[in-house]
Amino acid sequence: MNGIFITGEGPEGAGKTSILNKLAEDFSARGCNIVLTREPGGIRIAEQIREIILNKDNTEMDARTEALLYAAARRQHLVEKVKPALEKGAVVLCDRFIDSSLAYQGYARGLGIEEVYEMNLFATQDMMPDATLFFDITPEAGLERIEKNKGREVNRLDLEALDFHHKVYKGYQILLEKFHGRMHRIDASASFEEVYLAASKKFEQLLVQKGLL
Amino acid sequence: MNGIFITGEGPEGAGKTSILNKLAEDFSARGCNIVLTREPGGIRIAEQIREIILNKDNTEMDARTEALLYAAARRQHLVEKVKPALEKGAVVLCDRFIDSSLAYQGYARGLGIEEVYEMNLFATQDMMPDATLFFDITPEAGLERIEKNKGREVNRLDLEALDFHHKVYKGYQILLEKFHGRMHRIDASASFEEVYLAASKKFEQLLVQKGLL
Repeated sequence: MNGIFITGEGPEGAGKTSILNKLAEDFSARGCNIVLTREPGGIRIAEQIREIILNKDNTEMDARTEALLYAAARRQHLVEKVKPALEKGAVVLCDRFIDSSLAYQGYARGLGIEEVYEMNLFATQDMMPDATLFFDITPEAGLERIEKNKGREVNRLDLEALDFHHKVYKGYQILLEKFHGRMHRIDASASFEEVYLAASKKFEQLLVQKGLL
Repeated sequence: MNGIFITGEGPEGAGKTSILNKLAEDFSARGCNIVLTREPGGIRIAEQIREIILNKDNTEMDARTEALLYAAARRQHLVEKVKPALEKGAVVLCDRFIDSSLAYQGYARGLGIEEVYEMNLFATQDMMPDATLFFDITPEAGLERIEKNKGREVNRLDLEALDFHHKVYKGYQILLEKFHGRMHRIDASASFEEVYLAASKKFEQLLVQKGLL
């Protein structure tokens, strides 16, 4: 692979998506071949799979079925979009990837990080991101940011879900340790400008190391 | 689990489905609580997944995506239909299960028996059939039987596919060795009556051993 595969991860409200969008914009303007994507990434088969996962009538869906469907959609997106772009030397920047499955389904839903990881390695054929920007924010701070943007107060349902988001956060902290070589922690509790500065510094460094900038 | 989980496996033209139907009929008449099923088994979510797999427009589907989708459908069928029946003490007789994925996708499509097996153990949560009736017939004999029933001659496409069916057969032979304790070989090249006699003898023995007959 001539390109570099970088993923963005983090809990809700970390501002991840806005930062990745700006990274893609700014580094494209600097002449980099950036492919910004997210699963299912407009891949027909992956979109069909996603429809089953998100179908609100499918309340009886088992957590393992869900994990397998995410992995199936991941596989197809990887084969059709990510790999071809990497072969052409692109910088592929993907909003969420395998670590989301490990934190959300592996840890927070209790399926086990190792089990979900092994199953996902079948899907990716042992391929992992070259690097991951982890946007670190506590569930409380992330939730507060979401509410501020929505302009409404925290409601009962948000609070009920807080326990789940705590588990997701804990899951990510375990991943940070497990994958310390690949995962780069960005403090996402600061202002957008500060977070972007830290992220773009790390991003630039990764591209320079790979000879892509 | 109070019941027993028995699967039927074999290449095309082995007569497997007809034999399983008659087993279910005859042993139900003898008072056994038989649940005859096959994936996706009328399970809503599994049917939705199956539609994606069988959709003729999805020609770009990767072999690993396909294997993950089969495993996802398997999981949901197992959770909603097989396990509840076993808990009630039923004899669950399933037409094809994990071994089909191992022979067809693992061996014949070249994904690797061990890799597909490990991934499927995530789906089944390490649950395997208690016993498997393997209906053994060579691809040539199986194909001949299918053609005889259809009343047409073997065509070019059938012959082109023969190499694939040889691989499936070879895959099953490897499984027979790997799972010699669980898989029971039934010679399926004989007449229907003879094959049924051998199958029902083994089936009866399994039920008696488990105290279900």
